[in-house]
Order: sequence, then C-alpha cells, then structure tokens
Amino acid sequence: MTASREIRLKSRPTGTPTADNFELASVDVPEPEAGEVQVRNLWMTVDPYMRGRMNDMKSYVPPFQLGQPLEGGAIGEVVASDDPGFKAGDLVESSLGWREAFTAPAAALKKLDTRGLPPQAFLGVAGMPGLTAYAGLLRIAGLKDGDIVFVSGAAGAVGSLACQIAKARGHTVIGSAGGPRKAAFLKEIGVDQVVDYKAEPKLTAALRAAAPEGIDVYFDNVGGEHLEAALTVARPRARFSICGMISAYNATEPSPAPRNLAFLIGKTIRMEGFLVFAHYDLQPQFLDDLSGWVKSGKVQWRETVLEGIERAPEAFLGLFAGENLGKMLVKLS
Amino acid sequence: MTASREIRLKSRPTGTPTADNFELASVDVPEPEAGEVQVRNLWMTVDPYMRGRMNDMKSYVPPFQLGQPLEGGAIGEVVASDDPGFKAGDLVESSLGWREAFTAPAAALKKLDTRGLPPQAFLGVAGMPGLTAYAGLLRIAGLKDGDIVFVSGAAGAVGSLACQIAKARGHTVIGSAGGPRKAAFLKEIGVDQVVDYKAEPKLTAALRAAAPEGIDVYFDNVGGEHLEAALTVARPRARFSICGMISAYNATEPSPAPRNLAFLIGKTIRMEGFLVFAHYDLQPQFLDDLSGWVKSGKVQWRETVLEGIERAPEAFLGLFAGENLGKMLVKLS
Repeated sequence: MTASREIRLKSRPTGTPTADNFELASVDVPEPEAGEVQVRNLWMTVDPYMRGRMNDMKSYVPPFQLGQPLEGGAIGEVVASDDPGFKAGDLVESSLGWREAFTAPAAALKKLDTRGLPPQAFLGVAGMPGLTAYAGLLRIAGLKDGDIVFVSGAAGAVGSLACQIAKARGHTVIGSAGGPRKAAFLKEIGVDQVVDYKAEPKLTAALRAAAPEGIDVYFDNVGGEHLEAALTVARPRARFSICGMISAYNATEPSPAPRNLAFLIGKTIRMEGFLVFAHYDLQPQFLDDLSGWVKSGKVQWRETVLEGIERAPEAFLGLFAGENLGKMLVKLS
Repeated sequence: MTASREIRLKSRPTGTPTADNFELASVDVPEPEAGEVQVRNLWMTVDPYMRGRMNDMKSYVPPFQLGQPLEGGAIGEVVASDDPGFKAGDLVESSLGWREAFTAPAAALKKLDTRGLPPQAFLGVAGMPGLTAYAGLLRIAGLKDGDIVFVSGAAGAVGSLACQIAKARGHTVIGSAGGPRKAAFLKEIGVDQVVDYKAEPKLTAALRAAAPEGIDVYFDNVGGEHLEAALTVARPRARFSICGMISAYNATEPSPAPRNLAFLIGKTIRMEGFLVFAHYDLQPQFLDDLSGWVKSGKVQWRETVLEGIERAPEAFLGLFAGENLGKMLVKLS
C-alpha cells in the first residue's frame, strides 16, 4: 500500500467556486494486480472547463461526484506495474489528476513521448490546450491568408498559442488580456496589437482602435462583452471560433451580452462552438507543426506553477481571477 | 410623358416605423430614349430587410435617401421600349418597386420567365424569399437526413417555404408563428408541430414540448427569445441558419437575448448568418426543384395583398405587426 492525498468535491458551487467546495483527503493506494499499473503523478492541470463538471448537469462530460476525487489531465511516472505494456520509470498521461498517486488498469494510461519537450508541456502547449488552439484556428475558423485575427484570453494557455500559431502563419494578430503583466507577455510573443481590457473603459472602441480595418477571425475564450465587441468590429464573412466563455461560467444569472447578434446576418458571420475532443485526428499534424515552431523559436510558452496537491484548488480558483500567465499547473512531486 | 406615383422616404424612423416616415408623390415619367425601357409595375414587394435600409448606416445595401423614392423588387410590364431586348407587353423584374411606373436603362431589367406560375410568385415563393429559404436550409444549415427542423416566423414568405422544403425532403418540422390563423395555416401546409408563441407564456418550454427529442436545424427569422429557446432545445452539432431577426429590427436599445450562447460550445453548435445575394448560383436548381414541388402539391403559398401604391407603407408596417400570412405584396395595376 502507498499513501496518497487527493482533492475531492465537497460541495457544488453556486457562482464562483471557493476553497470550501473542495476537501483534501488521504487514501491508501493498493498495489497493482494483473493488468494494473501504479503511478505517481508529477504534474496535474487545472482548466476552466472543469467548472462545468462541478455542476450537477448533463453535458459533454459527466459531472464530478460529491465526495469523490476530481479528475483531469495528469502526467505521472510508473512506480510499479503488473502489465507488460508498462514498467517502472515510464512517463504516462492519464485523466487521473487531482491526486498524488493511483493504481489503475493499463488501459487508463498512455505512454508519453516527450519529443524533447518537458513532460508538463503535454498538459499545456503540446497537450489538450494546444490542440484546442490549433483545431479552433485552422479547422473551425478556417484560417486563410490575409485574415486579421483577434484572440481573447490571449495570455492563457490556449489563447497564447492561438496568437503564436496565427503569427507563425503570417497573420496580423490582436490579443486581449487583463493587466500590464499579461499585456507585456503578449508583446513578447509578437502579438501586433494588445488590448488590456481592464484598462479600457470601452472594449468595442479599444478593439476598433487596435483593428482599424476590422477582424476576419475571432478566437473566443471569454464571451460576453468581448464577443459583442468582436461582432461590431468584424468584417464581412468573418468566422468566430467559440472555444470558451469564461466570463459566463460562474454567472448565476444568464449573461445578457452580446446584444448585437443581428450583425451575424448583415456581415454573414459564421460562429461555431467546438470541443477539442472531436478533433484528435489533428493531433499528429499538430505535434509535427508545434515541434517545428518550437525549434524555430516561433512558439514560446509560460507556466504558472503551484506546488503540492493541497494547492490544487487555489490553482483552479486562480483561473477565474485571471491569475495565470500561460498554463496553470500544479506540481505534485 | 406618363404620370406615376411613388413612395418616398420622408424621415428616418426611430424604432418602429410609422406612416409619417413615408410620403406619396406624383411624378412624370419620361418616354424612353435609346437603350431605355418604360415599365408599368404590376406588383411590388415589401420585405423586412428594407427596415435596415431606412437607417442612415452603411450595410450590405446602401441606405434609402431622404426625399427619394424607396426601392425594392417589382414585377412590371413593358409599355414602351427603345431597346432591342424588350418590347411592349414583356413581363420584367426590377428593383424599382415603390412606384407605379418608371423609365430605366434596359440593364436594370430582367425578362421574367414565369414557368406557369403567377408573375407575383417571383416576388415571393419563386423569388428572393424563396431562394432565401432554399439556400438557408440546404447550403447554410446543410440539411441532412434525419434532421429535426425548427423554423421561426414560419407563416411568412420565407418561413412557410422553409417548412415545406423540409417536409418535402422528409423531415420532422416544428414551426412557430403568432396567432391561431397562422397556426392553422402551418397545420395546413403539413408542419408537424406548431408553436403559437403569442399563446405560450414560456417559449422554451413550448418548444421543448413540440420537439421532445430536440432540434438539429434552426432556421431563424426572429432572433431574441426564439433564438434563446432554440439554443436550449438544440441537440449536439445543431446548425443554425440565421436568416433574419425581425424581433430586433425596430429595437432602439440592443436586444439582450439570447443569454445562453455558451451552449454553442457544449453542444458544438454552428450559427451562421447569411444574405441571399451570395447564393444566386443556386437559383436554377432552386427553380427546378420548386417547379417539381409545386406540381406535386408539396409546396403551397399564401399572399397578403394590399392594392394601390398609396397602401405600400401600410403593407410594409404590417410586416412588423405580423399582419401578413405568407408573402406581403402590393398590387399596383
């Protein structure tokens, strides 16, 4: 038996989650039986989509269960194995984050080929958030030569890669984020025009000033007023890739914006929501492209790291307070 | 010289237009010179999109000018021609409605091949509204076998054809309209489930009852609460063809709904606005299909007809009061 600690859902949040919605528990992890593998997690991810799983509502992933550990992406190291496919020391990916260690059937694990990247990159730039940016820009928005691209939530894990993919392909990119530290980061990664929405009393006017010719593609991580501004500034035949609406996830009342959806008609805008799960067919191509961009210096990334399983709720809550620059991660050992 | 009367834009409306925004004027129409044709209009159309042209705002069509006659689709008969392409008695289409007669260069006219339909059908079911329904369903929504289709504004010119095209292709169709007369019409044309939104205190609940399995395609003529209800009831991978938002055209404040756009993500919904002008390549195929459907009794249409140019403003205003069953037309001679 191995000791482990895990974070459980103690209560379902109303509105913005708080530390009280989580509890830390200690458990014993059994030794692996035939076909099982024991893993010590090195890194776990917290992502905005997990907020939806805290509600007791049917959606594209089942809700987290009260009194049970949360789940999410993790990178770990095999410590013991009774399965021929895995041996001690192997790096593995799983969806069994929010815990220090676990024993699971081999089918719940995937061996990690790091391609020379740090393992935790596969929870961020080279993982689900990275593929989200790639699929959202290339497949959903159908990025094409000459498009002017606007990305909201541009300093986050998904947004900052979306900006850099667009730059690597030669586009003019406008990025929005909150606060001078994030704005400076966006400049560093080559974003042409930065909108610090916390410093702007009128977002639409600020976006228009940043994109005087309008925008052709909007990669939306925020929703609400950002979406409204993008609709106003959009050029004809713009495509909106709707990846997230973090402004709405904690709302207890339905959000009233955008109020100008009729622009969809006059400007013949396409607005499409997507989930990365449907686009894993792009993963090999994405990893090839990403490796090239990283080698040539066209893609950089940042991590905001908290250490210790006990800080996982704090990391998660920080997402909604905008505390992360780049990927928010928890280092577990 | 020939006498004609025309309707001019007297003032720009704020909110819902009134009769005071229009004025009737008498003019003399000159005899045609070389390359010109004189036409007496038989029918003119009034359409919701004209409301946008009454505002002094850049859009996909230029705004109407104060003191000048309005414009819009018309069917007329050539009375005199100094162009070899046209002779007296020819039926012609033009965009020079809102007047009894005019003289124009031959290039402003198109000869009408009625294919056995009444001429005014080319202002409705066989004209721009008809092609709008066809392109919106087949190209924008990408209608495919098994889709459950919801059409709002279903008793209007566009909506009633959208319903019948979907029925002709074997789909389950839910249509919404206001009042018992329109609801009865929808039943007559084969709509499976009718939502009389004026009789329903809760539109979303009414739509869910009408479409217990959800909807795959939404053909939106209304926007606002209808769009909100459709988002809630949509199934995964639904496609929304955004044709019109008549609920918003006269709004003086931005409309707050829909408040549930985050469903775009979780349900991976595609929402696409369109204008029929980009889809005239479908017209030959549309007219072939329509002829077949009319012959086999699968498509019927209704007209609401007011007589005399002086009643054109009343006909137009009636669109926003929901007074039309099927196509609203003005008979001019």
